[in-house]
Amino acid sequence: MSRFLEVIDVPGAVATAVRIAPNPVPEEIPAEQAPGRVLCADVTAHEDIPGFDRSIVDGYAVRAQDTAGAGDSAPALLRITGRVSMGEPESGPAVTPTTCVYVPTGGVIPPGADAVVMVEQTDMAGDTVLVKRPVVHGENVLMHDEDYRCGSVILTKGRRISPQDAGVLAACGQATLMVAKKPVIGIISTGNELVPVTAAPGPGQVRDANASMIAAWLHKYGCIPKVYGIVRDERESFETALSKALPECDVILLSGGSSKDDRDMTAGVIAGKGEVLVHGITIAPGKPTIIGRIGKTPVFGLPGHPASAYVVLLVIVRPMLACMLGEKKTALKTTKATLGSNIPSQKGREEYVRVKLVDGIAHPLFGKAGLLNTLVQSDGLVRILAGEEGLEQGSKVEVILW
Amino acid sequence: MSRFLEVIDVPGAVATAVRIAPNPVPEEIPAEQAPGRVLCADVTAHEDIPGFDRSIVDGYAVRAQDTAGAGDSAPALLRITGRVSMGEPESGPAVTPTTCVYVPTGGVIPPGADAVVMVEQTDMAGDTVLVKRPVVHGENVLMHDEDYRCGSVILTKGRRISPQDAGVLAACGQATLMVAKKPVIGIISTGNELVPVTAAPGPGQVRDANASMIAAWLHKYGCIPKVYGIVRDERESFETALSKALPECDVILLSGGSSKDDRDMTAGVIAGKGEVLVHGITIAPGKPTIIGRIGKTPVFGLPGHPASAYVVLLVIVRPMLACMLGEKKTALKTTKATLGSNIPSQKGREEYVRVKLVDGIAHPLFGKAGLLNTLVQSDGLVRILAGEEGLEQGSKVEVILW
Repeated sequence: MSRFLEVIDVPGAVATAVRIAPNPVPEEIPAEQAPGRVLCADVTAHEDIPGFDRSIVDGYAVRAQDTAGAGDSAPALLRITGRVSMGEPESGPAVTPTTCVYVPTGGVIPPGADAVVMVEQTDMAGDTVLVKRPVVHGENVLMHDEDYRCGSVILTKGRRISPQDAGVLAACGQATLMVAKKPVIGIISTGNELVPVTAAPGPGQVRDANASMIAAWLHKYGCIPKVYGIVRDERESFETALSKALPECDVILLSGGSSKDDRDMTAGVIAGKGEVLVHGITIAPGKPTIIGRIGKTPVFGLPGHPASAYVVLLVIVRPMLACMLGEKKTALKTTKATLGSNIPSQKGREEYVRVKLVDGIAHPLFGKAGLLNTLVQSDGLVRILAGEEGLEQGSKVEVILW
Repeated sequence: MSRFLEVIDVPGAVATAVRIAPNPVPEEIPAEQAPGRVLCADVTAHEDIPGFDRSIVDGYAVRAQDTAGAGDSAPALLRITGRVSMGEPESGPAVTPTTCVYVPTGGVIPPGADAVVMVEQTDMAGDTVLVKRPVVHGENVLMHDEDYRCGSVILTKGRRISPQDAGVLAACGQATLMVAKKPVIGIISTGNELVPVTAAPGPGQVRDANASMIAAWLHKYGCIPKVYGIVRDERESFETALSKALPECDVILLSGGSSKDDRDMTAGVIAGKGEVLVHGITIAPGKPTIIGRIGKTPVFGLPGHPASAYVVLLVIVRPMLACMLGEKKTALKTTKATLGSNIPSQKGREEYVRVKLVDGIAHPLFGKAGLLNTLVQSDGLVRILAGEEGLEQGSKVEVILW
């Protein structure tokens, strides 16, 4: 109980969570499994990309100097001596003074040429190409090392692989990658009022919504959720569940019942097996959060209200998971909006208010933290720092997007 | 060739793509597989949620009228007659005038009570609770149907299931759901210059980067990509590949080689087996895009430059896939930013410029569409409409986030 009074602020809680984060565990995976994973090492080009000088248009490979001064009324006249075929090296003849070679988009620039004239800027007369616009050295040419130079870093350690990155990895012929292993996150639900999703709740009972929500979020974030089900608020059964989960998981999230008895039991069991580092955070919603450690395994006691649990997951747990993945870019996606009405806030606590975005206006959805409907109807969160006493209607705010 | 000159604008191309989209195919899945899927039917509450009046704080269930006028100097004195246990119906006695019952957060409000006083606003003296602040009817109580009322719509058709939604579905005991089947999207790569990712490209050859990029994006968007590999620019082998893919896929994307010959061949084969509806769009990058249909299967010819292919995927293909999923919210995530430098643009075409975001400033990354590095370095796209002649430094822009 006394610990609960020594609440810690949000930056302090995040620092604690990050401090106890296990290090990323590297594993090698085939490149086609890379999207969504976080790189554990830089990826370097082993060759120049694209590897040869390519045309970026359909046109004529020329010596730029042969087109100097060309115009509609005085075109440069170049004799066409061949065509480059796609994918075949040196399939066209070399370009010599006053000659040119047809080259399709992506084709090899033939020796002797240093630029390409777009086909749209030419006319044909027999085997003579009439060039109606001058080109400069390098024009319409993609240089052999213009995308990536051999030895240069393509993707840096700590980056989460996007679809575009998957393209780059393919272009570079990367067969395998070193990425952070997906952390296994155990979820144990506690609370005598909870029944499984498949059960019909009796009077005084509710279904365990939080475990499903937390598992879905963890999966989306790139972790492996492991759901252990509901444990009654009895020290013994709780200890049994923890003993089972501890060797199987990298982190354990205790999805709390909402009562103080349940929270106290949670803290007691963690303290008995390890240490409680934080019990209570100046965050709203989410105050009754516990951060502890058993051996080297971080153990969180999440609050029972769904909105509270979700905010704590995003604000406190996520930075720790980012550490475990070695992810560099940890900022959440945000968008700027104008606040649709005043938000009062109590100084001394960091507040997260659910908002709905309509045409750039963020409308606060004030609602009890125990409600799921505002979580579903909202598009994200507006943060009010501990030092602020609310936000005024019309002020510019940053909305953390779900 | 002549078709290529009849280019269509972006809204027209999107309308064509959407018009030929196959209808969503409903399938029933277990609720735990729901996150990321798109609902094919409204989900309705079959009971009130939470189902009983609950306390949202740890405190004392009271008759609000018994606390009228209570203050620090004149507390209301209420005799405590019992405690509510979590998860047990009617575990506490009824509240009668001038009595109260302890109720933990989430516990059942006992009969007779209509409000809860927070434990922090009370003192104890023997079995008497000193209430130091009045509460009003309903205060600190979550009503039995306050989250969802029996029969009301919880999640609407066309919604993509978020982690929060997964929580709501669990709360409502939804065992299965009707969602849109994941569309199977075939990817056939064409282009004589292309070699597989595992090959060492010879002179004039490049690895097939686009198929990996497109597959990764499709997977992320909730489709099933099916990669058919590289086909040479020969009508016969292309037709063979198409005949194999057509019965296996809902949509076929031809990831084009970059040359005009390749594009013409693609259009020719589509026209031979079905119809070409669009050949050329006033979009930059991405002009040489083909939209066609073979039987009822949409067939797209995507441009060969990676940046062009990616823009067309987001701007033209995505709205069609959204239709196939029945997804209602089709807007991409955007953020507002200030443009870091002028962007010149050619009137008459809709231009998408890759930008990097640094502290709210969108810096254009001008680069050839054939480059992968700008795709990787950028955070998203700024759109310049066909009627605009570029954008000025300092102007407020909306950035479509990757």
